Amino acid sequence: MTTEPELVETAAALLVGAELLSGKVRDANLHELAGTLRRLGVELTRVVMITDDQDSLAAEIDALRHRHGVVFTSGGVGPTHDDVTIQAAAQAFGVPIEHSEEVEALMRRVYGDVLTAEHLRMARVPRGARLVYGSTSPWPAVTLGNVWLLPGVPEVFRAKLEIVRERIRGPGRFFSRNVYCRSDEAVLCQSLETVVAEFPAVSVGSYPKWGESSYRTHVTFDGRVAEEVDRSRDRFVALLPTDEVVRSD
Amino acid sequence: MTTEPELVETAAALLVGAELLSGKVRDANLHELAGTLRRLGVELTRVVMITDDQDSLAAEIDALRHRHGVVFTSGGVGPTHDDVTIQAAAQAFGVPIEHSEEVEALMRRVYGDVLTAEHLRMARVPRGARLVYGSTSPWPAVTLGNVWLLPGVPEVFRAKLEIVRERIRGPGRFFSRNVYCRSDEAVLCQSLETVVAEFPAVSVGSYPKWGESSYRTHVTFDGRVAEEVDRSRDRFVALLPTDEVVRSD
Repeated sequence: MTTEPELVETAAALLVGAELLSGKVRDANLHELAGTLRRLGVELTRVVMITDDQDSLAAEIDALRHRHGVVFTSGGVGPTHDDVTIQAAAQAFGVPIEHSEEVEALMRRVYGDVLTAEHLRMARVPRGARLVYGSTSPWPAVTLGNVWLLPGVPEVFRAKLEIVRERIRGPGRFFSRNVYCRSDEAVLCQSLETVVAEFPAVSVGSYPKWGESSYRTHVTFDGRVAEEVDRSRDRFVALLPTDEVVRSD
Repeated sequence: MTTEPELVETAAALLVGAELLSGKVRDANLHELAGTLRRLGVELTRVVMITDDQDSLAAEIDALRHRHGVVFTSGGVGPTHDDVTIQAAAQAFGVPIEHSEEVEALMRRVYGDVLTAEHLRMARVPRGARLVYGSTSPWPAVTLGNVWLLPGVPEVFRAKLEIVRERIRGPGRFFSRNVYCRSDEAVLCQSLETVVAEFPAVSVGSYPKWGESSYRTHVTFDGRVAEEVDRSRDRFVALLPTDEVVRSD
């Protein structure tokens, strides 16, 4: 299928799993997703992490899908008792779960004779779900409305992000500039406030850095208009004493 | 101050920062917090990540504080324009921001003569805030009701967790057991369901592992009663063919 990527402005992520909340497993997917969306020009505005409970997940999916252009869930799509994200999505959309002939055909091609009834649990999808294919893998991603139901296993999650990259786009790219300062944040407050007031379309961030000998504060300038971002960065640098800036880009 | 640690059952975390949502910075605090709470026997049930917007943060803090025993925020407590978590907490509790003589005295001791008006912005706390001290650092954590307002810088966040460890405790510890299986999840479904049905007080998790040659599925058993957890693990192992279990603990 070659269709135009879908235009979305904002995204939310729902990370699913008791293993994340218990600290047993360190989430590896959010950072990948955040970077992918950023490069697509899509604004990730909310991330929620909860456990594998169907009713809670359904309520969360329903809340997120109405307030964001696209929602990505991570985890809970396997065949075992604690995989309830597919059912939760169906519940959120008020549709039943159906057997997908398309998924079964894919699985039969991969598993062949060793395919069991339990494998086929993974062929259950919410009614109305779409299988979205990318150019690099035979395995599609499952979407329902504006919700992408992605797996939690990091290697597989990353493979699905290839499909996201081909099928989603933002209204324009983001531009980022950086200034690394010798002083701590308190010294920079007033210059920062001047720039924030003068460049309302630029998002200015200030981050103290510990354990770094060359600079103490990293100041960031982000926006969708490159010239504005550049001008805000230049204005900030001009407000500082010359020996303050360690480097900028 | 030597007071008894406070008993709490559930916790939520609010991770604050545009830099996390943009993928520029990978969050380093949640996993530390989750592990700390787990060891204290406190159940972390919800994590939310949003950007540095005061009204959004205030609404989030207000929602979380009513539904969880304790809430930990991470980030947005510095002196610059994008640090609005303290104001958001005050807004959530409907109290004004005040100057803290206690924080100022601490800062004067550390910064001495180089203390500026901008440094003193960090002496602003919501009315009714408490400064909670640990045994290892002169710097307290700021709390407001059941909300801990922790810094986002990972090194400082970890230092504050020392205070959390001394001042918070759960209703009892968690016990965890593990079984590493040769087969993929689908083969284990029915045995898992048997154990889940027989041990309602034990939380059973099943996690496919990629890129690991010795096992394909990691099964976990968690609960607050050690004997129950042990029995559920033993029952699961007994249900499997003998060559299925790679190892267990």
